[in-house]
Amino acid sequence: MALKSVKAYGTDAPEADLKQLNINRRAITKDDIEIDILYCGVCHSDLHFARNDWGMTVYPIVPGHEIVGKVTQIGVNVTKHNIGDIVAVGCLVDSCRTCKNCKNDLEQYCPGWVGTYGGFDKHLNEPTHGGYSETIVVDEAFVLSVPENLELPGLAPILCAGITVWSPLRYWNVDKNSKVAVVGLGGLGHMAIKLAHALGANVTLFSRSTSKIEDAKALGADQVIITTDEAQLESVTGHFDVIIDTVPYAHDLNPYINTLSTNGTLVVVGYLGPLDPMLVTVPMILGRKAVAGSLIGGIAETQELLDFCGKHNITSDIEVIDIQNINEAYERMLKSDVKYRFVIDMKSLKN
Amino acid sequence: MALKSVKAYGTDAPEADLKQLNINRRAITKDDIEIDILYCGVCHSDLHFARNDWGMTVYPIVPGHEIVGKVTQIGVNVTKHNIGDIVAVGCLVDSCRTCKNCKNDLEQYCPGWVGTYGGFDKHLNEPTHGGYSETIVVDEAFVLSVPENLELPGLAPILCAGITVWSPLRYWNVDKNSKVAVVGLGGLGHMAIKLAHALGANVTLFSRSTSKIEDAKALGADQVIITTDEAQLESVTGHFDVIIDTVPYAHDLNPYINTLSTNGTLVVVGYLGPLDPMLVTVPMILGRKAVAGSLIGGIAETQELLDFCGKHNITSDIEVIDIQNINEAYERMLKSDVKYRFVIDMKSLKN
Repeated sequence: MALKSVKAYGTDAPEADLKQLNINRRAITKDDIEIDILYCGVCHSDLHFARNDWGMTVYPIVPGHEIVGKVTQIGVNVTKHNIGDIVAVGCLVDSCRTCKNCKNDLEQYCPGWVGTYGGFDKHLNEPTHGGYSETIVVDEAFVLSVPENLELPGLAPILCAGITVWSPLRYWNVDKNSKVAVVGLGGLGHMAIKLAHALGANVTLFSRSTSKIEDAKALGADQVIITTDEAQLESVTGHFDVIIDTVPYAHDLNPYINTLSTNGTLVVVGYLGPLDPMLVTVPMILGRKAVAGSLIGGIAETQELLDFCGKHNITSDIEVIDIQNINEAYERMLKSDVKYRFVIDMKSLKN
Repeated sequence: MALKSVKAYGTDAPEADLKQLNINRRAITKDDIEIDILYCGVCHSDLHFARNDWGMTVYPIVPGHEIVGKVTQIGVNVTKHNIGDIVAVGCLVDSCRTCKNCKNDLEQYCPGWVGTYGGFDKHLNEPTHGGYSETIVVDEAFVLSVPENLELPGLAPILCAGITVWSPLRYWNVDKNSKVAVVGLGGLGHMAIKLAHALGANVTLFSRSTSKIEDAKALGADQVIITTDEAQLESVTGHFDVIIDTVPYAHDLNPYINTLSTNGTLVVVGYLGPLDPMLVTVPMILGRKAVAGSLIGGIAETQELLDFCGKHNITSDIEVIDIQNINEAYERMLKSDVKYRFVIDMKSLKN
């Protein structure tokens, strides 16, 4: 099929820095939209994929799945978007569209879902490449509309960090009667506070450090519980309906389980791996409590979130960088040295 | 307050056999019912309490919380039951009645719930004693009605083994569209198969041994998956909406998590302790799957179950013993050498 070579930033090997390279984008099919990428958020998964932390990377890899851009071409069947529209693309660019999960707007749980990068482009017959690039071509079914009032760079992280916490908040029915706790104040955590607050919930941040109190309250938290202070932790025993745990490494969930109310659920969204130390069933049984996982969100749910953010004027707190600074940004992200998400201004790629 | 000394079976020390002893029962208050105990089921918790496995036993301990008996006296305020009625008492004999859980018919999650044994009798000002005894005095709010058509000894285990699996089947909305798996074929597991089947679900037993196939199918299982056969386990990947795990010791939950469908929940009802080996979050996140705990059931839910069992003519499969054989029964229970529950014929205590 016809293709176009475009500039991108990626890497050929786990230990190598990201650098400029060229990738192929397919010519649009009748269902496709070509997007000139304006901004792309920087997600922890980008780094994990670039460095093959999960053992599944096919090189070269071009990360990026928090994409905002302008429509430059549309296929003949496209009806949702027009040339010149500002649109967004998140973590998914395709799915099987026929399985039960696809039929239920849960494309993220479709066994055949295609990642924006690290997936497989069936038209080009090669791996998909992400948003650290000049353009992207995506089936219109996976292209999202963007509320007009939101500032574009801050909107980009909604596509992954935002939907990753929004989906469990919605699935576990968070509303104005809910008590929600958030573990971890990074890209995901700060969005969880903003969104749970906007849903009307009473919101608590769990933090190891008093240095986060002011920031958390500014984001919408009603209180901060310092987890190293046993009396504080004790004071919220049996308190929370939902805990969104965004911490990206193994840590002890048991103290948090104790703070769940009867029927409460702790949702792990940030960490893939064994629960070390071991989860203890006693408080789970004695309070019908659950530990669950949740992965990004479906396309309809992501659109719902974008519309909600437009209505409530919510964007991510970000630091805008040039693509040339991506390697330094990765190092800073590893040290949590960003409030709270890097977003690449993609016009820097044209320099 | 006035009290009555009655014969019972219990123990003074963790390493001692159960033997006959005398305990106090309070004189009935205006809300109380005195019950002449006819049958009492034998639960694993009885053994754990008698041997202080959970470190909370106050001696002497008289176990037994699967009680069926006949009303012999009622207080002046009692309206639900009459002298001569056959009634039942399960794991709870009181709760605070004012907390949110009590108001929501979830007395089993009330922080002030009073166990049928090992709890505290505020009238007598001494520990509660269970059903291995001639009589028991219970507030009518915690006394259940018994369907007339059910055989009494087989009904006794419904009060703990039955409600322990019924409550999660109901809470996680099991119905004729559900695919349910049961792990472990003992007192709880065999009731889980019967009840899930009666709810119309498609029911699978997970077992390590082919020797259980015939029995499981006779109880209502549609299939048995032999867990040591990888191909069989693989064949049910992503299959189950709810798994009821009744196994009473630490075991690997990860293979079962893989057999949950998107949004599926594995409910631990049989094991209190650390999840060894560690639970791995990957399949939980990739399928929005949950691991939860569940504890017996509330009073209204237990009555609902008794009525359901009456309607569907469900009782437990049991082996009736004399109280004098309780120590031998404990040893056999430890070896799973019973199909599927021992029930004590309490007239043996009068011998």
